[in-house]
Amino acid sequence: MAERQSQIVLGLDPDPAALWPGSGPERAQGSPAERAAGAVLAHCRALIDATAQACVAVKLQLACFERLGAPGWSALQALADDARAAGLLVILDGKRGDISVSAAAYAQALLGGVRTPFGTAQGPGADLLTVNPLMGQDAIEPFVSAARAAGAGVLVLVRTSNPGAADVEDLELRDGGVVWERIAQIVDSLGAGAVGRMGLSDVGAVMGATAPEHLRRARELMEHAPFLLPGIGAQGGRVQDLAPAFAPGRAGGLVTASRSIANAHLASGGEPAAAARAEAERLREAAWALSDRAGAPC
Amino acid sequence: MAERQSQIVLGLDPDPAALWPGSGPERAQGSPAERAAGAVLAHCRALIDATAQACVAVKLQLACFERLGAPGWSALQALADDARAAGLLVILDGKRGDISVSAAAYAQALLGGVRTPFGTAQGPGADLLTVNPLMGQDAIEPFVSAARAAGAGVLVLVRTSNPGAADVEDLELRDGGVVWERIAQIVDSLGAGAVGRMGLSDVGAVMGATAPEHLRRARELMEHAPFLLPGIGAQGGRVQDLAPAFAPGRAGGLVTASRSIANAHLASGGEPAAAARAEAERLREAAWALSDRAGAPC
Repeated sequence: MAERQSQIVLGLDPDPAALWPGSGPERAQGSPAERAAGAVLAHCRALIDATAQACVAVKLQLACFERLGAPGWSALQALADDARAAGLLVILDGKRGDISVSAAAYAQALLGGVRTPFGTAQGPGADLLTVNPLMGQDAIEPFVSAARAAGAGVLVLVRTSNPGAADVEDLELRDGGVVWERIAQIVDSLGAGAVGRMGLSDVGAVMGATAPEHLRRARELMEHAPFLLPGIGAQGGRVQDLAPAFAPGRAGGLVTASRSIANAHLASGGEPAAAARAEAERLREAAWALSDRAGAPC
Repeated sequence: MAERQSQIVLGLDPDPAALWPGSGPERAQGSPAERAAGAVLAHCRALIDATAQACVAVKLQLACFERLGAPGWSALQALADDARAAGLLVILDGKRGDISVSAAAYAQALLGGVRTPFGTAQGPGADLLTVNPLMGQDAIEPFVSAARAAGAGVLVLVRTSNPGAADVEDLELRDGGVVWERIAQIVDSLGAGAVGRMGLSDVGAVMGATAPEHLRRARELMEHAPFLLPGIGAQGGRVQDLAPAFAPGRAGGLVTASRSIANAHLASGGEPAAAARAEAERLREAAWALSDRAGAPC
């Protein structure tokens, strides 16, 4: 973050029917999934090339690759490598959640690899992984252990950016507080033993940027958690509302934007790559300036 | 169910380091993931062959295929086809959950396909899909719509079988009840418009079989929901405790068993396929007899 002076995360959630012009498949042959995955790969590579200097990470939406089957999964792994080569962290946004051996299997899939009698099968190797906490602490722990072993981190869904967040996450509890605050306490407790010298732990939180009124409370409950902040741009969130995220320092918030960067040319005109670069740079400047006022040095 | 006289779901959660003897990869060449996926495919095919006549569905644990990358995803699609050819329903146990376009992308991935400029990329085609409700009703609806369009159904996590279920699912609410009961009300409401002639809807619930004391309450709250009941066998649940699931009829409960079938030979001795068949048949008889006493005709 210090090197790039950026907290911006490039969200990659490619729709094969709405790619940048010129994002054709590499080959004219192959199944629809193979050809679409090739086009998705070309599109995402162009987006990374255009915006990497203004960003600190990519966030790959796993649903968009999963719907292209095996070729989609290969494209995901290739993009994770490309992003690393461009100096970016890799956030795998799968919102996985399961229990015991199944949670451990997801952690093998996304954070490291699995030993088999035929050698180790390596996954895309996330630096950060989004995790769903509904099933409780013992469903999150296998992800935390695997992340710790891999030098990676976990981002737990705490308060999401959709209207339906009110249905479960905002339910008021008999003993006070609401469900997402209880999840925030679990996040804080899981990260407590692993706070680094910058004051941040390896267990973070996904906090929707569309409900900034929750950010201050979330920061009280999770003093050391890095926050992933989706919802800027297309979903209506604004960078200037994110100050509490940066209270522990400039690395306290990761500001993610997907459609507002990829589709910047639709709003501003011009060539897609130039428009994306300009929008990423605009967000970078806004977030960096805000974090300068809000918190400690990065 | 009537044809097979069975409510048993064969859980497939293959560990490449613990496959049946003889489950080698088809080819000696290839990457570790390719060879392991070949071995996993052979193992799961042998399990389906051995037990299909005693079962009504397979449940594929997506984590176990995802950790083998693109070859794992290909194996998943092949097994879904094999299961259908054996007359079994296909349950994809991915516990996916996301919002708006991302939820719709998961539904495309697992319930149907996605249109691309190169043709439609078809997924494995679930008959039933497990879904995580943390993010609320608007995060479940895209799955329900897609399932309805595909003649499939959705199974929402309501009260899971792990100890950590107490951390979030069991939290007591200010207005009475607990979190999982509120989720049960969402399930009931989403399925209300689609109750078929057998009295069951297309929105079901995952109810861990390790906490049978919750089953009666769950049935009160979700009169028409099919219940997927994991936790029998290795996790400690017992078939005889599942009667409330069958209150709306014999199709009211799907009893899933994974390790207790695949590893039956470790407990009982003998050849793996014969031991698996015997265990599946034992479970089938027990559940069918129980549902005969508990509920209406199938």
